[in-house]
Amino acid sequence: MQKYVYFFGGGKAEGKGDMKDTLGGKGAGLAEMTNAGLPVPPGFTISTDVCKTFYDNNGKLSPEIQAQIDEALGRLEGVSEQKLGSTEHPLLVSVRSGAKFSMPGMMDTILNLGLNETTVKALSSRTGNDRFAWDSYRRFIQMYGNVVLQIEKQAFDEIFDNVKEKAHAKLDTDIPVASLQEIVKRYKALVKEKTKADFPDDPRQQLQGAVYAVFGSWNNPRAIHYRRMNKISESLGTAVNVQAMVFGNMGDTSGTGVGFTRNPSTGEKEFYGEFLMNAQGEDVVAGIRTPLPIGELNRVMPDCYKQLREITDRLERHYRDMQDFEFTIQETRLYMLQTRNGKRTGKAAVKIAADMVREKLISSDEALMRVEPSQLDQLLHPILDPKAQAKELAKGLPASPGAVSGMIVFSANDAVEKAKKNRVVLVRKETVPDDIHGMEVAVGILPSRCGMTSHAAVVARGMGICCVVGAESITIDEKNKVLRVGDKTLREGDWVTLEGSTGRVFEGQVPTIEADPNSGDFAEFMAMADKVRRLGIRANADIPRDAQVARKFGAEGIGLCRTEHMFFAKDRLPHVQKMILSNTEAERRQHLDTLLPFQRADFEGLFREMDGLPVTIRLLDPPLHEFLPKREELMVELATLRAKGGDKKEIEEKEKLLHRVEALHEINPMLGHRGCRLGITYPEISEMQCRAIFEAAVKVQKEGKTVKPEIMIPLVVVPKELQEQKAIVDRVAQDVFSKAGVKVEYMTGTMIELPRASVVADQIAETAEFFSFGTNDLTQTTFGFSRDDAGKIIADYISKGILKSDPFQELDRDGVGALVKMGIEKGRATRPKLKIGICGEHGGDPSSVEFCDQVGLDYVSCSPYRVPIARLAAAQAVVARKSSGERGRTV
Amino acid sequence: MQKYVYFFGGGKAEGKGDMKDTLGGKGAGLAEMTNAGLPVPPGFTISTDVCKTFYDNNGKLSPEIQAQIDEALGRLEGVSEQKLGSTEHPLLVSVRSGAKFSMPGMMDTILNLGLNETTVKALSSRTGNDRFAWDSYRRFIQMYGNVVLQIEKQAFDEIFDNVKEKAHAKLDTDIPVASLQEIVKRYKALVKEKTKADFPDDPRQQLQGAVYAVFGSWNNPRAIHYRRMNKISESLGTAVNVQAMVFGNMGDTSGTGVGFTRNPSTGEKEFYGEFLMNAQGEDVVAGIRTPLPIGELNRVMPDCYKQLREITDRLERHYRDMQDFEFTIQETRLYMLQTRNGKRTGKAAVKIAADMVREKLISSDEALMRVEPSQLDQLLHPILDPKAQAKELAKGLPASPGAVSGMIVFSANDAVEKAKKNRVVLVRKETVPDDIHGMEVAVGILPSRCGMTSHAAVVARGMGICCVVGAESITIDEKNKVLRVGDKTLREGDWVTLEGSTGRVFEGQVPTIEADPNSGDFAEFMAMADKVRRLGIRANADIPRDAQVARKFGAEGIGLCRTEHMFFAKDRLPHVQKMILSNTEAERRQHLDTLLPFQRADFEGLFREMDGLPVTIRLLDPPLHEFLPKREELMVELATLRAKGGDKKEIEEKEKLLHRVEALHEINPMLGHRGCRLGITYPEISEMQCRAIFEAAVKVQKEGKTVKPEIMIPLVVVPKELQEQKAIVDRVAQDVFSKAGVKVEYMTGTMIELPRASVVADQIAETAEFFSFGTNDLTQTTFGFSRDDAGKIIADYISKGILKSDPFQELDRDGVGALVKMGIEKGRATRPKLKIGICGEHGGDPSSVEFCDQVGLDYVSCSPYRVPIARLAAAQAVVARKSSGERGRTV
Repeated sequence: MQKYVYFFGGGKAEGKGDMKDTLGGKGAGLAEMTNAGLPVPPGFTISTDVCKTFYDNNGKLSPEIQAQIDEALGRLEGVSEQKLGSTEHPLLVSVRSGAKFSMPGMMDTILNLGLNETTVKALSSRTGNDRFAWDSYRRFIQMYGNVVLQIEKQAFDEIFDNVKEKAHAKLDTDIPVASLQEIVKRYKALVKEKTKADFPDDPRQQLQGAVYAVFGSWNNPRAIHYRRMNKISESLGTAVNVQAMVFGNMGDTSGTGVGFTRNPSTGEKEFYGEFLMNAQGEDVVAGIRTPLPIGELNRVMPDCYKQLREITDRLERHYRDMQDFEFTIQETRLYMLQTRNGKRTGKAAVKIAADMVREKLISSDEALMRVEPSQLDQLLHPILDPKAQAKELAKGLPASPGAVSGMIVFSANDAVEKAKKNRVVLVRKETVPDDIHGMEVAVGILPSRCGMTSHAAVVARGMGICCVVGAESITIDEKNKVLRVGDKTLREGDWVTLEGSTGRVFEGQVPTIEADPNSGDFAEFMAMADKVRRLGIRANADIPRDAQVARKFGAEGIGLCRTEHMFFAKDRLPHVQKMILSNTEAERRQHLDTLLPFQRADFEGLFREMDGLPVTIRLLDPPLHEFLPKREELMVELATLRAKGGDKKEIEEKEKLLHRVEALHEINPMLGHRGCRLGITYPEISEMQCRAIFEAAVKVQKEGKTVKPEIMIPLVVVPKELQEQKAIVDRVAQDVFSKAGVKVEYMTGTMIELPRASVVADQIAETAEFFSFGTNDLTQTTFGFSRDDAGKIIADYISKGILKSDPFQELDRDGVGALVKMGIEKGRATRPKLKIGICGEHGGDPSSVEFCDQVGLDYVSCSPYRVPIARLAAAQAVVARKSSGERGRTV
Repeated sequence: MQKYVYFFGGGKAEGKGDMKDTLGGKGAGLAEMTNAGLPVPPGFTISTDVCKTFYDNNGKLSPEIQAQIDEALGRLEGVSEQKLGSTEHPLLVSVRSGAKFSMPGMMDTILNLGLNETTVKALSSRTGNDRFAWDSYRRFIQMYGNVVLQIEKQAFDEIFDNVKEKAHAKLDTDIPVASLQEIVKRYKALVKEKTKADFPDDPRQQLQGAVYAVFGSWNNPRAIHYRRMNKISESLGTAVNVQAMVFGNMGDTSGTGVGFTRNPSTGEKEFYGEFLMNAQGEDVVAGIRTPLPIGELNRVMPDCYKQLREITDRLERHYRDMQDFEFTIQETRLYMLQTRNGKRTGKAAVKIAADMVREKLISSDEALMRVEPSQLDQLLHPILDPKAQAKELAKGLPASPGAVSGMIVFSANDAVEKAKKNRVVLVRKETVPDDIHGMEVAVGILPSRCGMTSHAAVVARGMGICCVVGAESITIDEKNKVLRVGDKTLREGDWVTLEGSTGRVFEGQVPTIEADPNSGDFAEFMAMADKVRRLGIRANADIPRDAQVARKFGAEGIGLCRTEHMFFAKDRLPHVQKMILSNTEAERRQHLDTLLPFQRADFEGLFREMDGLPVTIRLLDPPLHEFLPKREELMVELATLRAKGGDKKEIEEKEKLLHRVEALHEINPMLGHRGCRLGITYPEISEMQCRAIFEAAVKVQKEGKTVKPEIMIPLVVVPKELQEQKAIVDRVAQDVFSKAGVKVEYMTGTMIELPRASVVADQIAETAEFFSFGTNDLTQTTFGFSRDDAGKIIADYISKGILKSDPFQELDRDGVGALVKMGIEKGRATRPKLKIGICGEHGGDPSSVEFCDQVGLDYVSCSPYRVPIARLAAAQAVVARKSSGERGRTV
């Protein structure tokens, strides 16, 4: 017979601390504490398996399970020497949920169960505390009425407040017994009115109702939402804990509290928490009375305080992690009601992990697993001073972390202009590649319409610029340079502060604190990660400033330098446009010659900054029309000019320009004339770029630095594309080297960013010396999701449970991942030592980094500010593999 | 030692007829004829392998090969009892190319080689024919000078014409010997002037030059172009045939001719050809003298004629195919110079194949392989009367076959208007989905800008409407309704004729001939194909008319009905637009209710037409903005209105519309909100469509017909998408059936048209009852090629040799094909009997059909007019598998 119910009490528990799958976190903690001899009220846990059968069985429990519950209840009555419904020693119990992963506040709890008109009197006479008994009873009816009978809480509150007022009571504890009795009476009348039935008097019926309600709460909307948000599986189910009540509301020697063994905000090793005397658990949270700092307990009840410190110290040593605990003192006697690993900030997580290694409490491998990589974000960017008073204007999506203040501007040109004197925040409906010069000089970007994967967001993350997108309550009038939100109107020059890690927007300047990645606990912690990880970590960086940041954060090379970002710069764009509008190769070459020194200087800067480390440079990738004015804008300008009978010559020139833009127009630019297709149509562009790279490499090498260029050809689908482009690379390299009398070692490889490239990777690897998976584009074509358009669809899909996560944020292992694996296997079949990396946004996502480690990539490349995250995720991947006994295995 | 040179002569040849790889077509034919004892001048073939070594060796032959040539030349001198350069019995030879596949006129030929100032005299005295000797000599210098020495032909022609004129000669044969000698003298002077060297006198030097030139001609631009066009591999190389000359220009008992054993145009079994007396080969082709029909030979030289008939009959029986032969008569003696399988029209190919089966000359399997599937096209559409005189206006790409005449119109609305009275040809720069109503009523479509895979071309092929695209010499002024080409101007109402199978555009009305697929040789031939093929053949058809055509052409079901084509119809589009512009689900449902009867009627028509056969209906697929006015057009209208200070209310309304269109605007619509993503956002659309389908099915079934609906969910990438949509299908079906008291059998399946769907096909097959590969879209995302944009890139890639063929026309086996195979294997792993088809444009492409057969698909679906092509291609795939001994094997 399967065991469904686990008893704990009398110093022994049937369950254990490692049975979280079966008992849930709370149940496992109670069992563990009981076995450890700690003062835990006895009770039993109905396992998570029952939750599944409950749903399979149309919301009922089988007789077999009911029998096990009854048996456990009997044992509980025996151990507690009380009896459910007894008129002398009535047993009262709490009924609480408890899933494997903590879901604070998401599911239901019922306290004081077992009370009715007779047992309340027994409780009263047994404790000699009439007030306490009736207070417990009214609490019970209220909770049960709300949770089990689903009567809105407000209806109870109204009765309570009404009677309290009538009794002229200031505090809840001031309400006299008679009034409490009146409350009970009126509560019961309310129940009768709402449910057309009497409030259940039979404690066994009460218990069944409560257990069913807790199981039922697993699927309430907020629980479902929480699980989606936190990626907790729907199939886990919750356990139910039925436990003998202890009472913190029995008078001035009773109380209740919650606490942490270390500071969850800073990580400092200090006892941390709050408590209330003469109260039940929910009072601490509800905020009706202000709780006291836990240190005060030492003054109020020094014995209890000492005992609590001893117990919690022991718990921390036992669990080898910072504990979050709940306790109740019933008439000077301390009871532990819960212990679990405490949630903490990134800063605290790092400090605690580092401290515990020093304290020899945990190994460095364990320490590495104690920090969520994404939490590191909080430590890398300046953060808002938590002490500052700030007025929140709006909330958007946290597109790129950081905390910055700046004066708002409404166009890229204004940004450049104003940035000469001030820090600016660029406010736009949405950004376009043309805005790059404005984005470059801004400290923050606030595009009101875009999503997390929009151009603005990607570029901002790439540049490490703080960015909040999609703050939809904000209306932007770019023409009149006005930002409106609610009844507020902000104009150019007004200050705002963005918090990129939360998506919050504040009015005015909010003070910030700087982060330093190379000192203290953080540096120590990252050194542990670096020792363990197998994957190399590079950064995506286009300009020396980014490269410098990347290096500071521990990047071991540049995995993606997007040369087009150099083309968008203000001093070059006119030349780029002329080049595109050229009619002949000769004309095109002339303009390319003008661009050459710019590009060369860019590369020189990068090479110097990355001395000794590899720099992967991708040749021109975006469709050329991105560099030209927008087609529809030209059409509108032209229509306006024509309608107004404008200057004939101006019209003619605009027509000519429009004609060229029309010729380059594409219906699906993502699938059009871009990537190496450009270099094949216009080999002279590839030539110029290669010349710039090699001339820069030669120059910087002559300065005594070590230069390792890796030329990357984008968007290859047919091996011959790569062959043709590589021929140009090699030809230009030879030419530059022979003129300079110097040779620089270099490699030529390709992005694998279209499904066909993965499928024929064996053929491509005949020419490619390295692969870099462009998982952004690969995700686009594998799913048929345009990043620019599919944001809404993906959000809709996630909310409907069709997708578990955004495949642009977390690499889709089943689909895109399978193509990545195929590409690796085929590529290495041809060229066993092929160097393979990834340079999509996924390179900075922990789950994706884990996948990259599993499938045997050599490195990941991500935006500079995500480098530490990737370093930690890569280390965790190794530790996870070790601990699952699959060391060295590639999936 | 490898054998490079194969001798033939004296009744025996070293080579054989089946050695085309080594000897080329001509060489193999000469060897075979020699072995068969036919009168063939002796000679030798330098193998195609030499061609490869020639290029590997920088355009030279190795001493080893040269030695084999010398040895063969020695044997030739022995057998012919003549000697190269001999002053008594000089050997003269022809040097001709001959690749494995005939490339008529693409490579070079030299006749009369071996002549010089001494041998010409020997020839003269030996033949007693001074004129013949000098005529041969001047021909030789001219050909050699042109082909080997690369002096332009015109320079020789000028000298020839000048002397001819001076001699007052009417015909070439009238030119006196002295004049021929003068020509020779002046030719040599020309050579000296151009090459700064004397014309080579040494016959061995001549021979080497000629052989080198012929090998060199393998890579002349026209040969390369021809191979690309006809998909002949670059690596095959050509052989060179050196053969003792026989002379058709030795007087009135000499002559030369070409012929076919059956009529290559009609297939009739009749002796067919032309000849000229006293002439050399090139005279017949050059058209200076008009050749005589070959029947005349019976009158002129009855013995030769009889011998020729006997020989060619024998050759046809021997080769078991219609022969294309060349012969020369030298002083009453007949020589065979070439025989090969003759090229023929589609009509002839079918008739000859059917006849030869009846004659028991070939098996039906062989007969099936004798017709190029694409040739059937010529038999299915009306064709231009070959006898008609037609004035070609322009030439574009053959987008959709047929031959039609119509009055030109320049807009879809004009088409609808004018089509009430006349046949119209819709002329546009490019078509958009909005034009569908105009396209529907047109007999032909002429979009000047589009490519072969453009919207216009796809729709035209789908509808079986004749279409010529990309005729770039045509300029279209849609506003003024004027078409210009060269100095011609055509206006609305002028007549043009399109020939869709060649892409030609003619002025005026050119008479046509109708095709009938269900009688005569064609029907008989197709019956043979149907007996052999394994693949089912369905058609893509959206309306009853197309379904009717499809059935007539042998379709066994509809593999793709695109329901959106019904949405574009003129009487529905306004309702569709209102539905899209709705703000609430209720409003949307209201407009959907209006559309329901239309859709139901559509399906009723289809089900009636396809009684007993399956009909696969795809739910709405395109992005909704395709149904709305174009964004940029609205912007321009609005700008114009504003600039002109237009009506305020009108501006407001346009702004509102633009706002909605903006909201639906996508940067890459191909990767946006389309396919099942629509049905998931707006389940009510799927619901309406399913209701229309099942209500129609119930109704038609009650009429006593058999209805087999297959509901197809487009663009699935995640299994849950399909589950959600299938739930709607099943729910609506149950509802309709229970109301009607009738059940209709149906299936629900999905398109596999994105890479991820192939990769997770095992998961999708858990829900899908059938798969249909949408290889158009799959090709788009696998390659990252937008069909709308990549036409130019693909053309460029093909011309540069980066791609071998257009992957939208011929399924890319390495890439897309690998994903198709993966999808099949994974799908069948989950559901072994999963029905799988293909419904992209590839379903009508023979090479793609072969692939579909190999990988084990159940059926292909193509446009109605391509059904016979697919039927034949499917049969050929089976025969090919049988003959390669791989029966039943799936690749």
